[in-house]
Amino acid sequence: MTTSAAISTDKGKLVRNQGVTGPLGFRAAGIAAGIKASGKPDLALVFNEGPEYAAAGVFTRNKVKAAPVLWSQQVLSGGRLRAVILNSGGANACTGAGGFQDTHKTAEELAAALSNWGSETGAGEIAVCSTGLIGDRLPMDKLVPAITEIVHEMGGGLSGGLDAAHAIMTTDTVPKEAAFHHRDKWNVGGMAKGAGMLAPSLATMLVVLTTDAVATPEQLDRALRNATARTFDRLDVDGSCSTNDTVLLLANGASEVTPSQDDLDAAVLAVCDDLAAQLMADAEGVTKRVLVTVASAANEEEAVAAARTVARDSLVKTALFGSDPNWGRVLAAVGMAPVTLDPNRISVSFNGNPVCVDGVGAPGAREVDLSGMDIEVRIELNVGDAQATIRTTDLSHGYVEENSAYSS
Amino acid sequence: MTTSAAISTDKGKLVRNQGVTGPLGFRAAGIAAGIKASGKPDLALVFNEGPEYAAAGVFTRNKVKAAPVLWSQQVLSGGRLRAVILNSGGANACTGAGGFQDTHKTAEELAAALSNWGSETGAGEIAVCSTGLIGDRLPMDKLVPAITEIVHEMGGGLSGGLDAAHAIMTTDTVPKEAAFHHRDKWNVGGMAKGAGMLAPSLATMLVVLTTDAVATPEQLDRALRNATARTFDRLDVDGSCSTNDTVLLLANGASEVTPSQDDLDAAVLAVCDDLAAQLMADAEGVTKRVLVTVASAANEEEAVAAARTVARDSLVKTALFGSDPNWGRVLAAVGMAPVTLDPNRISVSFNGNPVCVDGVGAPGAREVDLSGMDIEVRIELNVGDAQATIRTTDLSHGYVEENSAYSS
Repeated sequence: MTTSAAISTDKGKLVRNQGVTGPLGFRAAGIAAGIKASGKPDLALVFNEGPEYAAAGVFTRNKVKAAPVLWSQQVLSGGRLRAVILNSGGANACTGAGGFQDTHKTAEELAAALSNWGSETGAGEIAVCSTGLIGDRLPMDKLVPAITEIVHEMGGGLSGGLDAAHAIMTTDTVPKEAAFHHRDKWNVGGMAKGAGMLAPSLATMLVVLTTDAVATPEQLDRALRNATARTFDRLDVDGSCSTNDTVLLLANGASEVTPSQDDLDAAVLAVCDDLAAQLMADAEGVTKRVLVTVASAANEEEAVAAARTVARDSLVKTALFGSDPNWGRVLAAVGMAPVTLDPNRISVSFNGNPVCVDGVGAPGAREVDLSGMDIEVRIELNVGDAQATIRTTDLSHGYVEENSAYSS
Repeated sequence: MTTSAAISTDKGKLVRNQGVTGPLGFRAAGIAAGIKASGKPDLALVFNEGPEYAAAGVFTRNKVKAAPVLWSQQVLSGGRLRAVILNSGGANACTGAGGFQDTHKTAEELAAALSNWGSETGAGEIAVCSTGLIGDRLPMDKLVPAITEIVHEMGGGLSGGLDAAHAIMTTDTVPKEAAFHHRDKWNVGGMAKGAGMLAPSLATMLVVLTTDAVATPEQLDRALRNATARTFDRLDVDGSCSTNDTVLLLANGASEVTPSQDDLDAAVLAVCDDLAAQLMADAEGVTKRVLVTVASAANEEEAVAAARTVARDSLVKTALFGSDPNWGRVLAAVGMAPVTLDPNRISVSFNGNPVCVDGVGAPGAREVDLSGMDIEVRIELNVGDAQATIRTTDLSHGYVEENSAYSS
């Protein structure tokens, strides 16, 4: 129930007790810089020890982009990254030219600190990510001194990765890490944050992926776009993005192994898919983990569009919160999807129990037990052979509560 | 705050104490047929005494259409209606061929009852509307005898209209009526139901409009489409429709006045606009009545699209529920709208208080008081001179509660 695609991990092992420092040659740290009033960790660093510094990134499609996104997009155009610095406690979005200068200064300060520490680095090799409330300037008086501190905090081992995963949390309740160890002795690791994903909005999602494989920026870009399209883009985000969404992939070649593009694609996909499952499980106010699968669609694009329409539907989501097998709402929702369908051929099942067959209710449909936390809604359009699954959640009191009170 | 467009009513008077029987020559009734387990009124009838029987209708765009919608669309192709019979307590949607036969039988039974009562009527002159839970067959054993009863219940005066408005309610808390009396001695009246309208879903909206003006089906169709596009379509429905949404307009020429198309358009628009305002005010779980206005857009289409994107945004809606002037969420939402915009030129105000100017927070933005029930979000794109307003509501605990429990 936790993967939306059939992920082949037969060439290695996926673990959740390692993250960005799972692969060789990456250091990370997470500290409390004082950006959050709560005093919780709010500054994270991921450092690539080399020998290579290839990188790729995928950014928000929102026209309103935060300063760190504008900065990191520029930096990534070079296909090269030595480090990523991330802060929670402030999105640095809608902060104008001053906000962009703050991001630039953050990169400059980190470059200087890393150079002093012994690793010659330029600001143009550093990506910056921010998450938190939109509209406020970052407290640079607290951030700048913390940058020097965090460079000295960089541990070797895995603990640094976990500290970093903690420091990027906002409304997340748990840190999210995953790593894939390929049997050919190379690895992919990653961390993620982003707990709000009830369509049509998404709290900022930040993901940093690392690999010790030997790969060009072009190969990383292909692997990253393939993976995000099938995982993070199929959380129930309806194409919506926050002002700060960023997914980065850094490769240092430390394993000295050059995997095939297919193996690289599969490994990055496996890590992204597991992180996406963790994001869904920790979504704001979630009481149900829901997979909406549309099968026998005309093509995959239409399967995704139909599944998304159902996954976004407020009446479907509230019914699921109430464990109510109200299949009629599923039909009403799919009927608005811009896809090929015949109302009289649609069949629906909840957790494998048929509730609607050929557009008409099935016997016992109203008695299906949806009291468990995991619900799979399967919709057969019976017009083709394509299939896709969207991960979503219910619409609960907890979601309303958390987001009406949200302010950090 | 209750109208989304500048409605010219200077040629007459709009009142809320009259509905479908406000115009001359219409009778109506509402009774309890026993379709609802609660025993509340659940069957309504609107009868046109003539001399003319011109009519027009607008129906759901959902591909999954309820039996009464399929029936009424066929009937309306003739541009002629003698009566409309409406039931709550069951949508008769996703009920297959049997459900369509139930609708057909309902029209046949009413035609026979009206003929026996002295008004020669055919089933092909009768529209049928249903609202309630999707997927169950209607209890025809209760409905059929009630049809004869309701024909004999038809009152002359206004009370029949109010009884009908009561009988079509589902989760509505109040009946919704409006009538416009033109100074030239002709009238338009209407009733509406439909309380759930939080994007992307909409509880079934049923609207029956009547007029004693002399008008052709073509004139009625133009007036109805013009009015629905500017009113009901600008509730926060995101293009989504239920399986049963129906808006009908009947004209009998009893006033012997033939208004100009413009006057007819204006009168129908005034009644629809007021009914739309009443629908918003009674939306499921609403604690805030919200108008989202997008101004200085490239064109009206983009103004509507941008306002809709913001009006649908769950994070914006939950913030408004919490009376939180979280303007950053408004910018994040509008940034995803498929419209021409420059992030650095967007300005936002809440109830007239500037909270964001040229894409950057305004002083005091976090202190704006949104504790009242009415909130106007105004967004200036500063790229053109078009403007549009979408009516919406907050996303509250009440909405979640009502829809997770909803089953009638």
